[in-house]
Amino acid sequence: MARKPTTYWDYIKVEELLALQTGIAERESELGNDEVLFIVVHQIDELWFKLILRELVSVRDLFAQAHVPEQALASAVRGIRRMDLLLRKVAEHFAVMETLTTRDYLAFRDKLSPASGFQSAQMREIEILLGLPDAERIPLGHEHTYMQALRTADGSESPASRRVTARLKDKPTLHDAVHAWLFRTPIQGSTPGQPGDAERVRAFVDAYCRSQEVAVQGAMELARIEALTPEDAKRLEGRFASEVAAARAFLLAEDAPEAERARVARIRAALVFIESYRELPLLAWPREVVDGLVALEQAFVVFRQRHARMVERVIGRRTGTGGSAGVEYLDQTALRYRVFRDVWAVRTLLVRQAVLPPVENAAFYGFVGEP
Amino acid sequence: MARKPTTYWDYIKVEELLALQTGIAERESELGNDEVLFIVVHQIDELWFKLILRELVSVRDLFAQAHVPEQALASAVRGIRRMDLLLRKVAEHFAVMETLTTRDYLAFRDKLSPASGFQSAQMREIEILLGLPDAERIPLGHEHTYMQALRTADGSESPASRRVTARLKDKPTLHDAVHAWLFRTPIQGSTPGQPGDAERVRAFVDAYCRSQEVAVQGAMELARIEALTPEDAKRLEGRFASEVAAARAFLLAEDAPEAERARVARIRAALVFIESYRELPLLAWPREVVDGLVALEQAFVVFRQRHARMVERVIGRRTGTGGSAGVEYLDQTALRYRVFRDVWAVRTLLVRQAVLPPVENAAFYGFVGEP
Amino acid sequence: MARKPTTYWDYIKVEELLALQTGIAERESELGNDEVLFIVVHQIDELWFKLILRELVSVRDLFAQAHVPEQALASAVRGIRRMDLLLRKVAEHFAVMETLTTRDYLAFRDKLSPASGFQSAQMREIEILLGLPDAERIPLGHEHTYMQALRTADGSESPASRRVTARLKDKPTLHDAVHAWLFRTPIQGSTPGQPGDAERVRAFVDAYCRSQEVAVQGAMELARIEALTPEDAKRLEGRFASEVAAARAFLLAEDAPEAERARVARIRAALVFIESYRELPLLAWPREVVDGLVALEQAFVVFRQRHARMVERVIGRRTGTGGSAGVEYLDQTALRYRVFRDVWAVRTLLVRQAVLPPVENAAFYGFVGEP
Amino acid sequence: MARKPTTYWDYIKVEELLALQTGIAERESELGNDEVLFIVVHQIDELWFKLILRELVSVRDLFAQAHVPEQALASAVRGIRRMDLLLRKVAEHFAVMETLTTRDYLAFRDKLSPASGFQSAQMREIEILLGLPDAERIPLGHEHTYMQALRTADGSESPASRRVTARLKDKPTLHDAVHAWLFRTPIQGSTPGQPGDAERVRAFVDAYCRSQEVAVQGAMELARIEALTPEDAKRLEGRFASEVAAARAFLLAEDAPEAERARVARIRAALVFIESYRELPLLAWPREVVDGLVALEQAFVVFRQRHARMVERVIGRRTGTGGSAGVEYLDQTALRYRVFRDVWAVRTLLVRQAVLPPVENAAFYGFVGEP
Repeated sequence: MARKPTTYWDYIKVEELLALQTGIAERESELGNDEVLFIVVHQIDELWFKLILRELVSVRDLFAQAHVPEQALASAVRGIRRMDLLLRKVAEHFAVMETLTTRDYLAFRDKLSPASGFQSAQMREIEILLGLPDAERIPLGHEHTYMQALRTADGSESPASRRVTARLKDKPTLHDAVHAWLFRTPIQGSTPGQPGDAERVRAFVDAYCRSQEVAVQGAMELARIEALTPEDAKRLEGRFASEVAAARAFLLAEDAPEAERARVARIRAALVFIESYRELPLLAWPREVVDGLVALEQAFVVFRQRHARMVERVIGRRTGTGGSAGVEYLDQTALRYRVFRDVWAVRTLLVRQAVLPPVENAAFYGFVGEP
Repeated sequence: MARKPTTYWDYIKVEELLALQTGIAERESELGNDEVLFIVVHQIDELWFKLILRELVSVRDLFAQAHVPEQALASAVRGIRRMDLLLRKVAEHFAVMETLTTRDYLAFRDKLSPASGFQSAQMREIEILLGLPDAERIPLGHEHTYMQALRTADGSESPASRRVTARLKDKPTLHDAVHAWLFRTPIQGSTPGQPGDAERVRAFVDAYCRSQEVAVQGAMELARIEALTPEDAKRLEGRFASEVAAARAFLLAEDAPEAERARVARIRAALVFIESYRELPLLAWPREVVDGLVALEQAFVVFRQRHARMVERVIGRRTGTGGSAGVEYLDQTALRYRVFRDVWAVRTLLVRQAVLPPVENAAFYGFVGEP
Repeated sequence: MARKPTTYWDYIKVEELLALQTGIAERESELGNDEVLFIVVHQIDELWFKLILRELVSVRDLFAQAHVPEQALASAVRGIRRMDLLLRKVAEHFAVMETLTTRDYLAFRDKLSPASGFQSAQMREIEILLGLPDAERIPLGHEHTYMQALRTADGSESPASRRVTARLKDKPTLHDAVHAWLFRTPIQGSTPGQPGDAERVRAFVDAYCRSQEVAVQGAMELARIEALTPEDAKRLEGRFASEVAAARAFLLAEDAPEAERARVARIRAALVFIESYRELPLLAWPREVVDGLVALEQAFVVFRQRHARMVERVIGRRTGTGGSAGVEYLDQTALRYRVFRDVWAVRTLLVRQAVLPPVENAAFYGFVGEP
Repeated sequence: MARKPTTYWDYIKVEELLALQTGIAERESELGNDEVLFIVVHQIDELWFKLILRELVSVRDLFAQAHVPEQALASAVRGIRRMDLLLRKVAEHFAVMETLTTRDYLAFRDKLSPASGFQSAQMREIEILLGLPDAERIPLGHEHTYMQALRTADGSESPASRRVTARLKDKPTLHDAVHAWLFRTPIQGSTPGQPGDAERVRAFVDAYCRSQEVAVQGAMELARIEALTPEDAKRLEGRFASEVAAARAFLLAEDAPEAERARVARIRAALVFIESYRELPLLAWPREVVDGLVALEQAFVVFRQRHARMVERVIGRRTGTGGSAGVEYLDQTALRYRVFRDVWAVRTLLVRQAVLPPVENAAFYGFVGEP
């Protein structure tokens, strides 16, 4: 208790913080309000990103355990929801940036070129830690890879490139950790490694596919009523038939390399199982985890699309300061970057409760104290 | 003053309103909370749309006058901002819809098929009155045109198709009314019909194009510094050169049919003029009009993208109840539907104040009382 | 499947809905945009209120059961969160109302007098069903009780008074149902009715009070450092001492009538127990319930304060149409109306984990499958 | 163009920024996610405050001119709206803070005591520069003045106290600058200093008071219809009569010291004039200024009330780390701190357009080019 009394300015480091808005000038007094605003909004984004990264590491660590205790899931859900909220806050700041008119932004834009938001190391770290594979990245619009864009102009290492290089080694990604945990989900009361697990999972998948076919048939009957012409009816039939075939192919993981197929198929079956039998007590928190991941990735897509809208509004569709294709690049990343692809894909083949196959071993998922 | 005292329930028509949530059932008691929520959110959207439509008509009427009094512009801006706010509120309601889980939505989804949000007449009316041309509409994914989707199943007229048919005749669109007003903007002090107007506008456009070229050159110099290879530098040069060429072609309206070219070019020059000399008193409200239209159309795009995200989250990428391609259709409309294309295009070629050509006849735009 | 294909306009009842905005006129064409906006915002509020009420009934029914199954809690939490979200949406609509200027609102204000938002039956029903006691209501500023304000001018029954009268009989309130459930919470592994329960609860309360005293002592030491004068130090000491005394008096329910004291004390002990040992698996959902109720009531207070701000902005501090004291009345209800007083009071006496008394019988709260 | 290419990390100062979250520890690794979040949210608030302060200085400087050019008003409005938006963003961050549970916040709360948000110099600077008089401040709950709370524990100057001391000398406040500008508003075409100005302003005020009396009479008639008893009717009459008397007393500035009375009365008359004849071209921007100030101060009140709600939710009603009365203090400042009191007061006595006295000299307020 002998320590010096804490002050707000020491604890928050207010003076140090408020000295960082000079851009490339010697003194802040050389900058106008617009440029200081531009700098501050980016700084605030970096601060939110920092919180997201810390939370991402914690949640990843939790799922990376060989055994994830059930009560830890509530804590994982809290972390996922916090990230979701933070990302939504970041997206709301674009409105502040939009108080810049095009002409006023152009007044200082040349000063910052060729710097660019693509050089934000933390945004790249978030994508990497979530699990976005390098191979799926969209080129920036010039010959640089995203890693080159993070280096200094002469190609040497920078604080940004060092951060990202370190993060690429920080394994597993949240995606991989969550998949490892999903793989172990009890399906119809059976867990991996247990004798007959493969057969029971397959039986569940087969039964589920039959349910899904019934559901799609129903939807098709209804759609057919509105079909104007035989051609239209035929085209709709084709679309529904391919939904059934696609569901089966997905659940059997026909797109996965053969060595991986059983594992991927079990993960997808687990997702369908959790979503379908949501009211089973033991699935209450896993279900919140899955819902949380959907909300989180949705928040990311909304953030990217809102980013594209802000850029389009402030500078139009010109070439970005970092030489990128600007708005189009941002809109493409929003539509194409997805980490939790299986979690999303499952939503397309869910069916209503009334047609679900019956749960086996329901007691396994119940509370012991409530028979 | 002899009238009966007004009551809240008569004025708001509370009882009539609260009796409308029965869906296709006889009694509301047959519906669960989820379905009532689904119905109510759509009803609220329709109510907001109604307000947007009323405001849209008022603002359109204002711009459709042969002479728009300057003081009327403040009132137009107020209407545009109100529409912007309303659209943003509608977009915020998707979060309420997302409290439905996929499985719970599927429990009543078949009941409403083949009805679909594409049958919302007011949404179509808003698009039409704003000025979205039929030719630019994206097909719904079946053989129906959007007008057929609004008719009853046997192809006869419906309340929805009647509304839309009437709106198609309600001319001019906001786009056309605004363009007619923009066309009359004084440019360098010159107005259409005045002797030498064409020459002065052309001189302004030429001077502006030179400014834009200078600005793009500067950006290119900076981008070149970061180019890693000669190939990369060359590609960047190509991109910048095409920005210069595109700006010139756009301002000379080379894309417009020859008979229209002079008119379109004058409108585009007016937009550049208003955006560039924002501080001139007489341009204060026109500038707010243009800013307001950008904000409004941006709010529309954000609404469409947020709509796509909600649908993807709740039902995934399956075929929509109306037989549409669902999420993909919505994402495509967001990226491709634009009404105020020229307003947006101008943002791409604006330049910073320092390189602008000088204003001629500045006094023309000033306050008489402030020499 | 032989039913008529559903249409959007039948299902949503679009035409009936869009015919309800005539206010006290024969035809909507007599109304300006401002008045239609005023009517629509109130209608939308009533629609949201309807959803809140339906959800409130469901959640109340759930807690009103003699035994609340653990897995039902997740569903209760979902309902509570949905109400929270809906209330926040309602609060966001005040921004739409604020697009009315004072002068423009006054143009039609006399038409609606003496109608008033205080005549919204559903708002009163929500308060009643949550559990706001009549005795705590603040007078409207005239001699009417809130029930009289809901009758017609001649004092006869109205649709509003009938709704509220029926709701007053709809028991129990959410408050009472939740308290009944909280009362049964196992504390240190002991449940009511079990031999020695009273003693174990009392022992927990005593131990907790000692922890709280230690925590307050620590805070006082730190605060004392900054005290400038002996008088200031003394006053701070007094304030901290009364925090300790108040905590004890609260936990022993000294404010409750003697016959109720044991029951109230057990409920408060349960709240402290749930908040303090949040990580115990069996408390995971009860904790979410308590957090949800806090969020819900906070959303209600925010809604009331935001309402006061809107009224102050649009009409200032004049007498309301219903003869009420306007802004002041609204601000007072925000500060004084509270339903879940015990849930809030507990927050004031929580302590950090490090000083908590140890949990007894922790195994009781664990998962059987995870020893 | 020979300068080193700018990088994102140099321009935004990312590494310096991300090194400031250590609190009172040597290394950030000693801190948990919750504490880092707590620090970051405060840092972000300080960054937003910085932008608000810069904007506040610019807008104040603009109004502090002896003559404010009409076209400068649009720029003032832009600054006011930007501050409003920024304050609303700050208020939205409380939701992030609320992801801290009470227990988890208490885990590190002692570390920061006796530091407190009351030590935020910038928040005090904003209040001072807006024009909150020291005499109206509510005591923090201990003997410290707000200035003492900004000093170090031993009473010596701190970075915070230095900032605030400097700001107290930075005159005029926005309130005073705006009042000086409002004083010069032409009323019925007459400006201060012009012969007969006092008489014409007084004639306007008298005419306006008669209009207001007519309007209040109308409202009273309507309210009387609902009065249940003669006592109630009498009480309502009393309330309306005092509204009329209060309006007159306010407009004649009877509350102001005699030497100030004429000046204050002219300012209040100007506010009524601007609000009442909003459609006059010359009043278009002054009206936006007044609307902007109302929105800004409302945003401040909403921010304070939301702040109180967050504190109540996270720590309840205990004594604050800085020794303050916590929630109650915050709620009181929200209700009692007002800077633009006259702007607010005017809203209470505005009347609908139909009963306004006629404008004299309307041409004075028109556009010269539009007779």
